[in-house]
Amino acid sequence: MSRGATVWLTGLSGAGKTTIAVAVAERLRAAGREVEVLDGDELRRGLSAGLGFSRDDRDTHVRRVGFVAELLARHGVIALVPVIAPYASTRDEVRAHHDAHGTGYLEVHVATALAECIRRDVKGLYARAAAGELTEMTGVDDPYEEPDKPDLRLDTTGTDIAAAARRVMELLTERGMT
Amino acid sequence: MSRGATVWLTGLSGAGKTTIAVAVAERLRAAGREVEVLDGDELRRGLSAGLGFSRDDRDTHVRRVGFVAELLARHGVIALVPVIAPYASTRDEVRAHHDAHGTGYLEVHVATALAECIRRDVKGLYARAAAGELTEMTGVDDPYEEPDKPDLRLDTTGTDIAAAARRVMELLTERGMT
Repeated sequence: MSRGATVWLTGLSGAGKTTIAVAVAERLRAAGREVEVLDGDELRRGLSAGLGFSRDDRDTHVRRVGFVAELLARHGVIALVPVIAPYASTRDEVRAHHDAHGTGYLEVHVATALAECIRRDVKGLYARAAAGELTEMTGVDDPYEEPDKPDLRLDTTGTDIAAAARRVMELLTERGMT
Repeated sequence: MSRGATVWLTGLSGAGKTTIAVAVAERLRAAGREVEVLDGDELRRGLSAGLGFSRDDRDTHVRRVGFVAELLARHGVIALVPVIAPYASTRDEVRAHHDAHGTGYLEVHVATALAECIRRDVKGLYARAAAGELTEMTGVDDPYEEPDKPDLRLDTTGTDIAAAARRVMELLTERGMT
């Protein structure tokens, strides 16, 4: 069995986390790896129905996703996690949980600037926040604590997805995870 | 990759669910399979902190465990789940979730009689329930709905664990899961 790992893609809504995760997943599958993209919406239904977007609820959700990612990675799966995870201490807890089990963990900061995320507004959430229809929007009226020392930082402004995915693949190879 | 599956061991506290799961896990690992025993206590901490033992909370917990087991099984892991899961309709939901993903699922009813479970009282819970120190004890003051058509029914009274584990292994082989 190949070595599994969790690759957490943290960043604002619209930063490109899921798009990059899906592109990396394709490449890994083509290389014969078991891969799971732990999609935020499916996970909220399966694991965290009833939780909202307060700090406590976000932290609980991130911890649960981390718990599941570690279980998968422990069994040789590359778990790609495109989940905002706005709080540094909670991200650190998830990393520590992986370390405690000897399971590989990489943090990728998808560091696309807020202005660019707002310009894209893939899900229309920034427009709703601007119109006052939505609160607790990360980067707008809710905090995003940037990672100090991510394993990789990607800004997708003016970069194509293929190049971003390639850099994640290079990182995985560098760390002996492919 | 081998085909994964979830094997849910349902039954009363003290019925022998975990002991059988651990014995089956050993045999499967010896046969080179990826195996995870989804232990109730670790899962309650990792996925369901704050949930209690009301019908709603038990159902939510069982659904979450089912969600995680399916994710593992989807990637070739045999997920052994020694979790009481007292309500038939919730067990059926978990099976349906597996069916919807084309993921193998087996229900094993560890059907040790309540009197024998009370005699063993591995965790001392029945004594506490009898002393009125504990409520919502499955089989005492909380329901256990017996499976109508489990894939396998085991009564561990007077049966050794090795024999029980062997029967689960035979079932897995019969269904093309080993």
